[in-house]
Amino acid sequence: MGGVVVTGTPRTPLSLIDILAEYGVATVHEAQGRTGLLASGITPIQRGTRVSGTAVTVTVAPGDNTTIAVAVEQCQEGDLLVVAPTAPCDMGYFGDLLAASLKARGVRGLVIDAGVRDVADLRKMGFPVWSRHVSAEGTTKGNLGDVNVPISIAGQIVRPGDAVLADDDGVVIVSRATVAEVVVAAQRREEKEALSRGRYLTGEIALDVNNMRPLIESSGVRYVDYQTWKEEWTS
Amino acid sequence: MGGVVVTGTPRTPLSLIDILAEYGVATVHEAQGRTGLLASGITPIQRGTRVSGTAVTVTVAPGDNTTIAVAVEQCQEGDLLVVAPTAPCDMGYFGDLLAASLKARGVRGLVIDAGVRDVADLRKMGFPVWSRHVSAEGTTKGNLGDVNVPISIAGQIVRPGDAVLADDDGVVIVSRATVAEVVVAAQRREEKEALSRGRYLTGEIALDVNNMRPLIESSGVRYVDYQTWKEEWTS
Amino acid sequence: MGGVVVTGTPRTPLSLIDILAEYGVATVHEAQGRTGLLASGITPIQRGTRVSGTAVTVTVAPGDNTTIAVAVEQCQEGDLLVVAPTAPCDMGYFGDLLAASLKARGVRGLVIDAGVRDVADLRKMGFPVWSRHVSAEGTTKGNLGDVNVPISIAGQIVRPGDAVLADDDGVVIVSRATVAEVVVAAQRREEKEALSRGRYLTGEIALDVNNMRPLIESSGVRYVDYQTWKEEWTS
Amino acid sequence: MGGVVVTGTPRTPLSLIDILAEYGVATVHEAQGRTGLLASGITPIQRGTRVSGTAVTVTVAPGDNTTIAVAVEQCQEGDLLVVAPTAPCDMGYFGDLLAASLKARGVRGLVIDAGVRDVADLRKMGFPVWSRHVSAEGTTKGNLGDVNVPISIAGQIVRPGDAVLADDDGVVIVSRATVAEVVVAAQRREEKEALSRGRYLTGEIALDVNNMRPLIESSGVRYVDYQTWKEEWTS
Amino acid sequence: MGGVVVTGTPRTPLSLIDILAEYGVATVHEAQGRTGLLASGITPIQRGTRVSGTAVTVTVAPGDNTTIAVAVEQCQEGDLLVVAPTAPCDMGYFGDLLAASLKARGVRGLVIDAGVRDVADLRKMGFPVWSRHVSAEGTTKGNLGDVNVPISIAGQIVRPGDAVLADDDGVVIVSRATVAEVVVAAQRREEKEALSRGRYLTGEIALDVNNMRPLIESSGVRYVDYQTWKEEWTS
Amino acid sequence: MGGVVVTGTPRTPLSLIDILAEYGVATVHEAQGRTGLLASGITPIQRGTRVSGTAVTVTVAPGDNTTIAVAVEQCQEGDLLVVAPTAPCDMGYFGDLLAASLKARGVRGLVIDAGVRDVADLRKMGFPVWSRHVSAEGTTKGNLGDVNVPISIAGQIVRPGDAVLADDDGVVIVSRATVAEVVVAAQRREEKEALSRGRYLTGEIALDVNNMRPLIESSGVRYVDYQTWKEEWTS
Repeated sequence: MGGVVVTGTPRTPLSLIDILAEYGVATVHEAQGRTGLLASGITPIQRGTRVSGTAVTVTVAPGDNTTIAVAVEQCQEGDLLVVAPTAPCDMGYFGDLLAASLKARGVRGLVIDAGVRDVADLRKMGFPVWSRHVSAEGTTKGNLGDVNVPISIAGQIVRPGDAVLADDDGVVIVSRATVAEVVVAAQRREEKEALSRGRYLTGEIALDVNNMRPLIESSGVRYVDYQTWKEEWTS
Repeated sequence: MGGVVVTGTPRTPLSLIDILAEYGVATVHEAQGRTGLLASGITPIQRGTRVSGTAVTVTVAPGDNTTIAVAVEQCQEGDLLVVAPTAPCDMGYFGDLLAASLKARGVRGLVIDAGVRDVADLRKMGFPVWSRHVSAEGTTKGNLGDVNVPISIAGQIVRPGDAVLADDDGVVIVSRATVAEVVVAAQRREEKEALSRGRYLTGEIALDVNNMRPLIESSGVRYVDYQTWKEEWTS
Repeated sequence: MGGVVVTGTPRTPLSLIDILAEYGVATVHEAQGRTGLLASGITPIQRGTRVSGTAVTVTVAPGDNTTIAVAVEQCQEGDLLVVAPTAPCDMGYFGDLLAASLKARGVRGLVIDAGVRDVADLRKMGFPVWSRHVSAEGTTKGNLGDVNVPISIAGQIVRPGDAVLADDDGVVIVSRATVAEVVVAAQRREEKEALSRGRYLTGEIALDVNNMRPLIESSGVRYVDYQTWKEEWTS
Repeated sequence: MGGVVVTGTPRTPLSLIDILAEYGVATVHEAQGRTGLLASGITPIQRGTRVSGTAVTVTVAPGDNTTIAVAVEQCQEGDLLVVAPTAPCDMGYFGDLLAASLKARGVRGLVIDAGVRDVADLRKMGFPVWSRHVSAEGTTKGNLGDVNVPISIAGQIVRPGDAVLADDDGVVIVSRATVAEVVVAAQRREEKEALSRGRYLTGEIALDVNNMRPLIESSGVRYVDYQTWKEEWTS
Repeated sequence: MGGVVVTGTPRTPLSLIDILAEYGVATVHEAQGRTGLLASGITPIQRGTRVSGTAVTVTVAPGDNTTIAVAVEQCQEGDLLVVAPTAPCDMGYFGDLLAASLKARGVRGLVIDAGVRDVADLRKMGFPVWSRHVSAEGTTKGNLGDVNVPISIAGQIVRPGDAVLADDDGVVIVSRATVAEVVVAAQRREEKEALSRGRYLTGEIALDVNNMRPLIESSGVRYVDYQTWKEEWTS
Repeated sequence: MGGVVVTGTPRTPLSLIDILAEYGVATVHEAQGRTGLLASGITPIQRGTRVSGTAVTVTVAPGDNTTIAVAVEQCQEGDLLVVAPTAPCDMGYFGDLLAASLKARGVRGLVIDAGVRDVADLRKMGFPVWSRHVSAEGTTKGNLGDVNVPISIAGQIVRPGDAVLADDDGVVIVSRATVAEVVVAAQRREEKEALSRGRYLTGEIALDVNNMRPLIESSGVRYVDYQTWKEEWTS
């Protein structure tokens, strides 16, 4: 069965994409109102890497990676491949050869809700990958999914050209239309956090820094000393 | 709903806590009769770190980290935060700001049966964390759990002031009343293992080092040569 | 209950075993027709290590590692221990003492569908391990499984003397009778991949390098431009 | 944070929806080219029930079911509620009171990638539910998701007004634009299967019924008698 | 290693226990402030059964059910056995013989965070069981855990004599000291729900029945018609 | 890639197979020394059914059920199909058409470490199935595995012609060579259990029925009354 390859999809400007990478996934996720985060379980095969890119979206049939080969042709400088299988599958859809090909085209990384292989080589090449599985199990060829249509991956919809940001905390999607405002909000959040961090380092605590004491009091929390509590608990 | 914060809870003396860290989690678990180990699945975000501390126990509502902020105020030098959600939740309850605050108070690490975020920063700061998940998904504020009451985490009860020991193998709890004797037993075990290790390195095997041959014989094990076995198996 | 220990089992010659390690697990898995791979989930405790060896197979009772001690005596230079519990169990069957003993006999590593402990020490010793779990939970002694009979592990049958190859991608088994031809096939595959890699690095893509365009066309894939697609999708 | 509630969304005509329910999920999934199936793991709380309806889509914050209450107001006769949390959560978002309310409005069932509760009552009421979890853990109120926007659930995108079909095999989504042609294809498939079934019952086998012998032969399969094989395998 | 058997532990009066069973697990969980619920995953082997009893608590060594036999002697009319292994284990700790013995003593059921077997017989006998696994894998004898000490099971602490309530939604623990007030709160909650149910059945919705409209409005939710939304989403 | 189909494999006599079904899986598993049990997680789609048969073994490629069609031709009266994928896969390999075909040949059931579909129909037909998943996701055709070679499934090796016994507790394999002696041992075990059951029903307990008191005493268990224990625990 053949799928659809959409061409000429709009992309988030790379200037915005590059600024986005100045912020962590956790910060950006908060900055856009706690949305857009891929469910945990899609983890980096490397440590300490943060990348951003424009999404080229791909769906693949179970155990068949043909569509990734098709998608490579649609990739350009600054893209990041986002791949979801149409049914859960832990096979190794992606290895060092596809990575070499993508790198030669300026693609910045891969996010895949399935397995990858050749991970030692991928780490050596410095091609960043976030995947659900590592598996040497190879795939076959012949069944096609779609390229550059909206896809469902790890609880999020990703549309072609959306901004993708990934680091050690996971992967967050920012819709193309909102990247600019999200960057502004991330910057504000980071400035606020920097102020808080300074106060924490001098020994202040969140109850005061974030003015939480009224909330705590109104919650009905009860402070009791150990002896009183012990008598209650063991009565 | 507000919980309970117990104040003035007794703690294992830090002199004992510091000695405990001379032994590995596996050794201490054996030394206290194979008890006190958190179920596997709570893993370190860093490698090669071993820490011990006095437990400050915390329960948190699903998706709400307010109680951790409340707990910080109860922490002191040598403590280690032990956090369990009241229902399974993989969200990121803890990040670099709370870590900065805890570090400033001399807290030695975090054990949490849920998610954490900002893990790249946590690693850079050298704040040790054992968690079940990594997730950038932030939490809300307003629902309170308890601080410094006995909690149930990963199959174990942890009480405030208990000794916590964590390394690459996992996390073990030693009850406050037994730390001294457990340290002694761990020391004895380690001495015995050092002797065994020496014999293993010279080529002796466990059957002899641990005098296991009578056990093996009485178990009814049968040694057969390959040809005999092959005929049996394929008959 | 006592099991069976088979002695005098044939082994793949070490000369072949050593050549096998020149290829990655993914390559060898493909080279033998996509067979022999242990299911994903058995992962290395270290990174960047590749080893090959002759399988010494072991089954262990749940929570009882006696049979590993029995198996040590059957091990020789170039072996690799392959251990499966007779029921799923995440306990720590194996630690630094057994590793020391195996290392002294020239055993090259461990593959176990259960838990291991002392992982910090195992990494320091450079004893390579692939396991399903890490757990400090110790095992008891007294119930015996089998040594050097065919075992079922992670979806594969492993027979004593089979070749085992393990790296960051996982673990593959090559049956003793076919190692020579698999090595030849792996070499051919690697040469072919080297040629492809060269072409990818210059910007060619898999559709051309692997001559996939006829397959793509016959699959019925449809290329549509973004505006056309958008009207269809939102109609 | 408030979400978006889209009103006046188009719906698949109920006449088509009702015809769709004459076919099983497996048949419809095949009929539309093996697409649209929710990943396995979302299972019915009852047995032997098949329903179809028009999707009212809902996203809910972790541990907060306010948006379901908002969605009820958007529901009408023939609808089926499809609910996804914005982060994995096993809490009980839905119970007998919401079911009573939905039933009074003619809603035909619920598909939720989270937990439900009061399942004994739901079964007694005959309100059909497909969920990932059963949990009595109640949710809080105050954080809103979206209603009737496209959502990502269990690896599929569901859009408001899409047709939803669910039975003991799982849940399949048919996009509004294609229901009519899918029904036709399902009918054809069922007729073909009825013919095949008849032949199977008389003892014919799939190799002949589906004319698979050429495929089998070209696959290179090898038929060997047991004695020959045994000698090969044990050599 | 031998454990501890505590005798003469106080129990919740059976008169209260019996009243508790008039309410569902979900209702009681809410009535005591959303606490006390065992994590989902411990499920009934039968359907449509609700039981309450006084907890006899048991910890068992991995793969060893000796302590259950010890616990039987401590059981009396109205008790309910609550069993946790000291490490995760899916083996079948409990079958029809132990059930016959418990039934003869008036024990009302079993909650176990491990496996059970003989489930067809258990269903026929009408002995209610909530377990994490079903497995025929038998256990050995000889390693003892504890009876009637506080235990940690599925995220909750259970103390001997606590009230246990279990139905198709799961298992909730009510501490002995609070059963009376929880029963009162459950009764109130149920009366309130009955009123709501009546209104739902006549077509009113939760937004009105629970007076949620102010909350919804203050949340900032935005109602948009489909055409407007579509233009925004596809821009 | 084509596999191997072994013909003329020996089978356990049906007279023995039929007697085996007089005993439960748990009993037979014990009777053969706690071996042969498939790991838990392969569960029946129906309740209250017990079947035995001679294994026809099948391996299938991920997402491809061609080999099952090939295997049907090798099946005869009294067989039971045992199917393992060569890599974990939850797709629906088997549905009502294949069941109709197998039933027409006298095959007694299916055990599969993957998914099945049409489960409502399978239940209506009374064709017994034990599977790891239920999924409507169909498979493709063209890649062949093996038929009637030894396979690895759920931690066990199954050889063609072995006896398979399955009920609500799971699935156990009895090797062809040992069925007769296992039946005898099962009978003995059942007689012993019947005697014990009688004593349990009159109120005796396992400590006496199985003469466990010496074991308990030698284990070092300590009986303490509640007041003493409470003072220890809260000190």
